[in-house]
Amino acid sequence: MARVVVDVMPKAEILDPQGQAIVGALGRLGFGGVADVRQGKRFELEVDDSVDDVTLERIAEELLTNTVIENFNVSRVAGE
Amino acid sequence: MARVVVDVMPKAEILDPQGQAIVGALGRLGFGGVADVRQGKRFELEVDDSVDDVTLERIAEELLTNTVIENFNVSRVAGE
Repeated sequence: MARVVVDVMPKAEILDPQGQAIVGALGRLGFGGVADVRQGKRFELEVDDSVDDVTLERIAEELLTNTVIENFNVSRVAGE
Repeated sequence: MARVVVDVMPKAEILDPQGQAIVGALGRLGFGGVADVRQGKRFELEVDDSVDDVTLERIAEELLTNTVIENFNVSRVAGE
């Protein structure tokens, strides 16, 4: 078994209202110095060793990401 | 400015229905070999260099994480 992490983040040109809400809340709570927050998703997958990188890219692109508004990054976690 | 990533994941003992739904969908779509999926959140913060690690931990723990059901991990992204 291998562990794979897929990070999915809103594209830079896409407005991120959740992130902006967090920036506002931080200011009200007295946490200064945070200029920007973007909120995305993180998926941790446990996959058989038979699942290759091409398949992982397809899973990330076709099921986990809305590619109109989001970018994704697939990485295998070492040591497992 | 520094870039900080906060990963928030459901605790291991917490049921993750979103992740289980993805496992089911992968099977129906013909992607075999995925044993488990856990879905969490990823936050990317742009912070002033004046914001120290203790403050970042507090932001993650008090605002970004529901510590009853989630764990968090704070990491600074090198090279920025």
